[in-house]
Amino acid sequence: MEDIAIVGIGCTPVGEPWDKSLRSIAVESTWNAMDDAGVDQVDGLVVGNMSSGNFIDQESLGPLIVDYAGLGNITAFKVEGACGSGGAALHAGAMAVASGYHDTVCVTGVEKMTDVVGDSATKILSNASDREYEAIHGVSFPGLNAMIMRRYMHDYNVKREDICSFPVNSHKHAVKNKYAMFRREISLDSVLNSPMVADPMTLMDCAPICDGAASLILTTKEKAHEYTDTPIYIKANSVKTDTIGVHDRKTVTSMRATVEAAREAFSISGLSPKDIETAEMHDAFSIMGVIGLEDIGFVERGQGAKFAADGQIAIGGSLPCCTHGGLKARGHPVGATGVYQVVELCRNLRGEGVIDVSNGLAQNIGGTGSTVAVTILGRD
Amino acid sequence: MEDIAIVGIGCTPVGEPWDKSLRSIAVESTWNAMDDAGVDQVDGLVVGNMSSGNFIDQESLGPLIVDYAGLGNITAFKVEGACGSGGAALHAGAMAVASGYHDTVCVTGVEKMTDVVGDSATKILSNASDREYEAIHGVSFPGLNAMIMRRYMHDYNVKREDICSFPVNSHKHAVKNKYAMFRREISLDSVLNSPMVADPMTLMDCAPICDGAASLILTTKEKAHEYTDTPIYIKANSVKTDTIGVHDRKTVTSMRATVEAAREAFSISGLSPKDIETAEMHDAFSIMGVIGLEDIGFVERGQGAKFAADGQIAIGGSLPCCTHGGLKARGHPVGATGVYQVVELCRNLRGEGVIDVSNGLAQNIGGTGSTVAVTILGRD
Repeated sequence: MEDIAIVGIGCTPVGEPWDKSLRSIAVESTWNAMDDAGVDQVDGLVVGNMSSGNFIDQESLGPLIVDYAGLGNITAFKVEGACGSGGAALHAGAMAVASGYHDTVCVTGVEKMTDVVGDSATKILSNASDREYEAIHGVSFPGLNAMIMRRYMHDYNVKREDICSFPVNSHKHAVKNKYAMFRREISLDSVLNSPMVADPMTLMDCAPICDGAASLILTTKEKAHEYTDTPIYIKANSVKTDTIGVHDRKTVTSMRATVEAAREAFSISGLSPKDIETAEMHDAFSIMGVIGLEDIGFVERGQGAKFAADGQIAIGGSLPCCTHGGLKARGHPVGATGVYQVVELCRNLRGEGVIDVSNGLAQNIGGTGSTVAVTILGRD
Repeated sequence: MEDIAIVGIGCTPVGEPWDKSLRSIAVESTWNAMDDAGVDQVDGLVVGNMSSGNFIDQESLGPLIVDYAGLGNITAFKVEGACGSGGAALHAGAMAVASGYHDTVCVTGVEKMTDVVGDSATKILSNASDREYEAIHGVSFPGLNAMIMRRYMHDYNVKREDICSFPVNSHKHAVKNKYAMFRREISLDSVLNSPMVADPMTLMDCAPICDGAASLILTTKEKAHEYTDTPIYIKANSVKTDTIGVHDRKTVTSMRATVEAAREAFSISGLSPKDIETAEMHDAFSIMGVIGLEDIGFVERGQGAKFAADGQIAIGGSLPCCTHGGLKARGHPVGATGVYQVVELCRNLRGEGVIDVSNGLAQNIGGTGSTVAVTILGRD
């Protein structure tokens, strides 16, 4: 399986741009990535998006974005895997190039969540859980993650405050990222003392509702140097699934889809967890980031929170995580998140980011781990 | 580009199964196709679906179907291209195999449209038009197609009754299809005299709101004979786009995405329109079927209605169309339609259908032609 090259990256600032529509941020991001690659046309567009039909009453994002970006009659479609849509769209984009069906493909992740009329964003997001067994009973994602956090604390004898380091770390890293939504540091105390969302989880454990778009231009390894001197290669991109309902799993303190996706990604890339120099973890809720570290194999079971509290996930630590702010502070425009993570890894690998590394891993979760994409990038 | 093989097909009867949920019909269809291929596992699942988020408050169909079909932790995601979602999902599925990323892939198209609470199905479908320039003004797909029909009649001096042959043909062909929703013939007069939906288009010009699921098992040409003695090959599968809004086009009586997708599909397959022995046309509205015949190049501009009225699209005619009932009579569960078309072509090519042919073409439209998939199948 030949590596696919990323030759262009782009994104919009994450936030609440009331003056911009989904199509305008998607086009802005797509054009940014095309400019970065130095191309004025691509052969295909894969859109990562979760729920534009519910958020803004608009489907058909493929032709919508192609149309408003002025790209003519090219191939385009949307890929959905809940909050893992970005990672799944990258999978489809990589296959589009690897199959020889398309030479250059743009993958654009986009979500516009702040313009909702009627339903709340949290209700729309709950469509990614099992509607007939979870959401219908009123348990939304904050509720599911609070129960997982409680169980994790019980099983591994971890105190609530031990889990606070994850959002504190993400906020610290976001300060230098001009595309981040929250560019200010927070303290451990502020996490503990912020309003309770679902006991034991507080507001500062939760990624925000927001808008954003991020894009990647993909092509073959063979053609990469026609576009850029600093191509970044997809060493592996694996998408795995698990039961949609959390109640159907043997354990709730591990996500099987992460375990399986990571195992496959390490096998394909020939790397192991100890080889990875930086990780973009899916910290939609603090506990997700903690469990992800364990599922991927970076740390032993029950050690994720301690690893974060010891400063190992900070820039300067043994495994800098969420170096551009993660989902918590850069923001989590759900269908775009998996693409933002890869854009940020590319910045670091190109030498345009905040750390100097030669490889990196991104974990992008959909639902409560019903979809997980694990992507490993390398400089060569 | 090596052909991809279809080694298993399956579907559910189209209709209003109030006792079955989306997950149950999707699993039934997936299992039918797996049984047909003689496999108890696949490596990946691509779901074609337009709007389950709006129709039934459920996203994450990839893991949902994998979970309830008992397929473990395999790769899965949804592909959306409005009513062209099925054709676009086939494109993604073919790339998944052609890329070497996955050996066997199931493509399942599914839509559950009859269980809607709140919004009407027609309003949800209008999310595939341009929300900000079309749907917001109240023009839904019946309205858009009625305007196109009126313009077509004016431009080519075609009488309203000349366009009635398309649904009459589809209903006649549906009689023998046990999976069809409407298994009864209708007359030209009944089309003319059925209730007006949007002048000049009557109820019998419009495909029904319904539920259904259809599935295909794909693998490489090399491995096809391990599964079946009658593999059917995808000679070409092209997906192209056009402006999402109809008002942005130079003409409304031709769909540029069909023209471009057909041109590419013929180029890849080495075939021409005159080589094609049967066609599954996207007759969601009678006028769409008529214009499709012209856009693909089967007939000259303005001759589509006459071609149908002359009986050329009937079984026994020069180009049998919609041999299993088309969208009008088999039914149009939107995200599944493109997969039903290919399942029906496979039946004919395998010798299990209603005509004996060695190749066939399917045209699957999303929106008002903003997405079009053209697929050409062959026996070898």
